[in-house]
Amino acid sequence: MKQTKAYAAASASSPLKLNHIQRRTLTSSDVAIDVLFCGVCHSDLHTVRDEWSSIMPTTYPCVPGHEIVGKVVGVGSEVTAVKVGDTVGVGCLVDSDQACPMCHAHVEQFCGHAVFTYNSPDKHLGGVTYGGYSEYMVVDHRFVLRVPDHLDLAGAAPLLCAGITTYSPMRRWGNLQGKRVGVVGLGGLGHMGVKFARAFGADVTVFTTSSSKLEDAIRLGAHHVVLSSDADAMKQHAFSFDFVLDTISADHDLNSYIQLLILDGTLTLVGAPENPMPVSSFGLLFGRKNVNGSLIGGIKETQEMLDFCGQHNITADVEVIPIQKINEAYERLLKSDVKYRFSIYMASLREN
Amino acid sequence: MKQTKAYAAASASSPLKLNHIQRRTLTSSDVAIDVLFCGVCHSDLHTVRDEWSSIMPTTYPCVPGHEIVGKVVGVGSEVTAVKVGDTVGVGCLVDSDQACPMCHAHVEQFCGHAVFTYNSPDKHLGGVTYGGYSEYMVVDHRFVLRVPDHLDLAGAAPLLCAGITTYSPMRRWGNLQGKRVGVVGLGGLGHMGVKFARAFGADVTVFTTSSSKLEDAIRLGAHHVVLSSDADAMKQHAFSFDFVLDTISADHDLNSYIQLLILDGTLTLVGAPENPMPVSSFGLLFGRKNVNGSLIGGIKETQEMLDFCGQHNITADVEVIPIQKINEAYERLLKSDVKYRFSIYMASLREN
Repeated sequence: MKQTKAYAAASASSPLKLNHIQRRTLTSSDVAIDVLFCGVCHSDLHTVRDEWSSIMPTTYPCVPGHEIVGKVVGVGSEVTAVKVGDTVGVGCLVDSDQACPMCHAHVEQFCGHAVFTYNSPDKHLGGVTYGGYSEYMVVDHRFVLRVPDHLDLAGAAPLLCAGITTYSPMRRWGNLQGKRVGVVGLGGLGHMGVKFARAFGADVTVFTTSSSKLEDAIRLGAHHVVLSSDADAMKQHAFSFDFVLDTISADHDLNSYIQLLILDGTLTLVGAPENPMPVSSFGLLFGRKNVNGSLIGGIKETQEMLDFCGQHNITADVEVIPIQKINEAYERLLKSDVKYRFSIYMASLREN
Repeated sequence: MKQTKAYAAASASSPLKLNHIQRRTLTSSDVAIDVLFCGVCHSDLHTVRDEWSSIMPTTYPCVPGHEIVGKVVGVGSEVTAVKVGDTVGVGCLVDSDQACPMCHAHVEQFCGHAVFTYNSPDKHLGGVTYGGYSEYMVVDHRFVLRVPDHLDLAGAAPLLCAGITTYSPMRRWGNLQGKRVGVVGLGGLGHMGVKFARAFGADVTVFTTSSSKLEDAIRLGAHHVVLSSDADAMKQHAFSFDFVLDTISADHDLNSYIQLLILDGTLTLVGAPENPMPVSSFGLLFGRKNVNGSLIGGIKETQEMLDFCGQHNITADVEVIPIQKINEAYERLLKSDVKYRFSIYMASLREN
């Protein structure tokens, strides 16, 4: 085993602070990684504060972080896909049973034995898994992704969660070339949605509640932007979108976005509002509208997404912070005061 | 113009009773029909009692009925598809603009100028259209369907609404051969859903709140039946259905049926509960579940459905009533006391 520095929360009400955790000894199928950057996902904050206690209670100490980019510093004897010195990524998953129908269908995120990167039972060391707010990690090679070297690595880290979460449902929808795509919400997920929709050749409209983001939506690649509080503008766009990506995590009125869809159009939720959302049956029946959900993506699809980002030079817009600023960053995250993702420069932890 | 007998409501609180209405003179594109049978749809009751006043207020007198089977007694000069003596059907639609993208896509039910069979503005005579609780109708030939002669015509009448409403979403889902299909609710719509799902080769499970319907579900063609109040049984069926057809019109918990779906599975609503239904985002995200709605079908698809019913000898299970029993039938409908659709024998009106 190897001791490594990490930032951990001791309880739901504790700030994150320096701690020391153990990483397992490299097995023959493992990859050892020095973490370079780790994105800050809203899920980190939810987990640290035990806000999902009803479905996934948090075990403490909690080391979050699942948007990880690092350098390979060691590989087990079976590992051939990556070698020492490679730039790699780790997302939300670090293991699955590799045997069930979900794993065979390359959707390991739905495997009944999926092991999440943090706060999941750790079969090697007991306790729970610890995430990327740390110097060093050991991860099974099947869950290690290749990251195109020429990408800005601080901006590449969020691709591992925000990237795949928005890429996957749009990719699975079909060919978006020339289609009208709406992106609801312009935060960490939404700004990635805009970049992907644009790269897929769609005609992209951002719906935001924030008049301060109107210009930024266009800068990020949107063709149009609508203030969702403007009832007239919303009405004008009714029955005109092939696909709407809803990235809002807060409670909001789904029906006003369902009405944007054309016949047989689809709204995909990728945020997870805490409370059930009232959906009007008439809104679904008239025009045969679809509402569905999507959760990150499988490993194969995540690699495909990273390769696509390499080809199209797509990364997240990030504000790079040292780990010492993480608690402040969480407070700013709650106020959506970040454009559009924090990315922790992990060398800052080594200097701690 | 021609005067004809009909059963009409004079106000939201009036019973239906004999009245006399006008039908237009046959134009070159019209078909004149003597009504033989008219099914009793829950929409008839909602409209008669002005229960959809917020979206479609009722104009009185109101003559409902949109599950119509009759005999052609006259055709205009342009009409070639049907001739005098043919058995024909009329469903929920009697006109549309024939020019918009919806009409071109053969989904006239979503045409902005669709004219419904009753309680829709009547461009010929002014006022509103009058439905099938009448002796005689005049309908544009584009909205007149051919009904296979060998079918039981009392049971064929409900195909025009209950039939197409359940056929359409299952047909559009794709090939259901060998797929697991759930039908939620065993009423007028649900029992048609069971028959179609069975005819499509699916493995069919009925979910019902009514223990009195368990045996009937099997008789109608279901392979399995589950009492939806049995939490253990519901849990056992979680994550196992490709497609769920939800036919319940009353408020109910959608999430307990969403959980039945497999990865990428679809639940289609064909009932229209009055109040918005709370949908859990987690329930949609985990397993990428789809919820959508479907509303009757277009004319082309309705003809396809009738032809399919002819080939497979599918009709509704009906209780045939004289028109004089219609108010009593409405009261029984409210108690789900019918197996599974009332069909009015319209000769009873001629004798009135």
